[in-house]
Amino acid sequence: MALAAAGTADSVAQASPASPNTGSAALRGNTIRFVDLTHTLTAAFNFNPLQPRIAMDPIVGSGYSVGMNLNRVLMIEHTGTHLDVPRHFDPKAASVGDVSIRDLVVPLAVIDISQRFATDRDAALEPADIERWESVNGPLPSGCCVAVHSGWDPVADNAKRQSLPPDAARRVPGVGIEAAHFLAEKRSVKGIAVDAMSIDRGTDTPAYPVHQFWLRSGRWAIEYITNLRAVPPAGALLIVGVPPVAQATGFPVRALALF
Amino acid sequence: MALAAAGTADSVAQASPASPNTGSAALRGNTIRFVDLTHTLTAAFNFNPLQPRIAMDPIVGSGYSVGMNLNRVLMIEHTGTHLDVPRHFDPKAASVGDVSIRDLVVPLAVIDISQRFATDRDAALEPADIERWESVNGPLPSGCCVAVHSGWDPVADNAKRQSLPPDAARRVPGVGIEAAHFLAEKRSVKGIAVDAMSIDRGTDTPAYPVHQFWLRSGRWAIEYITNLRAVPPAGALLIVGVPPVAQATGFPVRALALF
Repeated sequence: MALAAAGTADSVAQASPASPNTGSAALRGNTIRFVDLTHTLTAAFNFNPLQPRIAMDPIVGSGYSVGMNLNRVLMIEHTGTHLDVPRHFDPKAASVGDVSIRDLVVPLAVIDISQRFATDRDAALEPADIERWESVNGPLPSGCCVAVHSGWDPVADNAKRQSLPPDAARRVPGVGIEAAHFLAEKRSVKGIAVDAMSIDRGTDTPAYPVHQFWLRSGRWAIEYITNLRAVPPAGALLIVGVPPVAQATGFPVRALALF
Repeated sequence: MALAAAGTADSVAQASPASPNTGSAALRGNTIRFVDLTHTLTAAFNFNPLQPRIAMDPIVGSGYSVGMNLNRVLMIEHTGTHLDVPRHFDPKAASVGDVSIRDLVVPLAVIDISQRFATDRDAALEPADIERWESVNGPLPSGCCVAVHSGWDPVADNAKRQSLPPDAARRVPGVGIEAAHFLAEKRSVKGIAVDAMSIDRGTDTPAYPVHQFWLRSGRWAIEYITNLRAVPPAGALLIVGVPPVAQATGFPVRALALF
């Protein structure tokens, strides 16, 4: 099957032998490879130039006389490649600073729906996609993150998205509510990640059914993940490098796949 | 020697068998252990209550009617456990978003100066400390990060630091300028990390000689790292989970040691 072949370690290596987003390192005598799953966070993620999602304000501080530069950052938490935590939809639930590191270093399963997205920009993860992944790779690992590779991420920055025809710009893939229930109730999944801007597809906004169900169930999500095409579908370890910010409902991350 | 014995993997395991900052995960059939080297980022890192280093400003946005919560964050880049990059002392040099992921996944060498700090709060890393580490563990790995474990980190939050006698509160350990030159010129080291608030010790502020030399040489540093006592002195891999923020001179991180 084409989908299975595209995910083998050999074909991944051939696809991006010298990508700046990949590398390798030694750990206890083994060589491990890694892929950076993170977009560079720039003002390109601003939806509205009058309401910047991230901006820098230089500070003249005590070290200025010896050449120190630093900034005050003004940033909306949910910007760039970022984590959503339960507090995003429940003010009493876990903030970013409350999530255990043990829930942020987890097995990673990559499910490819890019063939469907190529002809349907409203494509969403469905239970049949999960069952098809399991038929090739075995059961989803306990405590894993399921990442949905739709192929939307090349238009993640807002200027590129707005360059699409208006109908296409509004239509963004995501996770279907049936698949979210399946992952939480029929499997033991800690997180979901999407290469799109929201775990809810565009047609499910502003009701946000998947956000409401998934985050209130105590789980987390990553939005705007990228480079999933360079990760094998099974066997990788995800590291969610999120600064542990108390009270935050979400925060930009450095997400890495190790394999 | 006591210093060497304190760093063996066995004694590390005995020291923190169930710490919430540690865990393990499977990767390609091997069990790898990890330690979170990051302080939770709270307002406790504010030096001055009138100039908060991090603050949250709730936003009433489009998802508010279905229970969405989110914040605008106002934050000084150099807050909590954070990365310093060359732009911090050179406005034309690499920003956080410019640093290659290959420079953020590196071997980690932990050098323990806590015995000296126990009797001298101005203690700093010296070339002799590096040579002593190498006499036990072999040459520093090429491209590594050297982390200095002084034992200062239990007073990292500002309220705890201010609870010390005034003289002790002002005195903070760091890296000596001779050691910085040694690591850059006699060895091939990419980063230094300190469990104190600055790579320059308190007595070297506000001249910042180590910041000026080290960052302008194109290298990076991590300040306010923690939990180094749970990491073996040699053989670990450091993951600097910093969101890749364009233009930033520094940014909070999630730093992990894998071994």
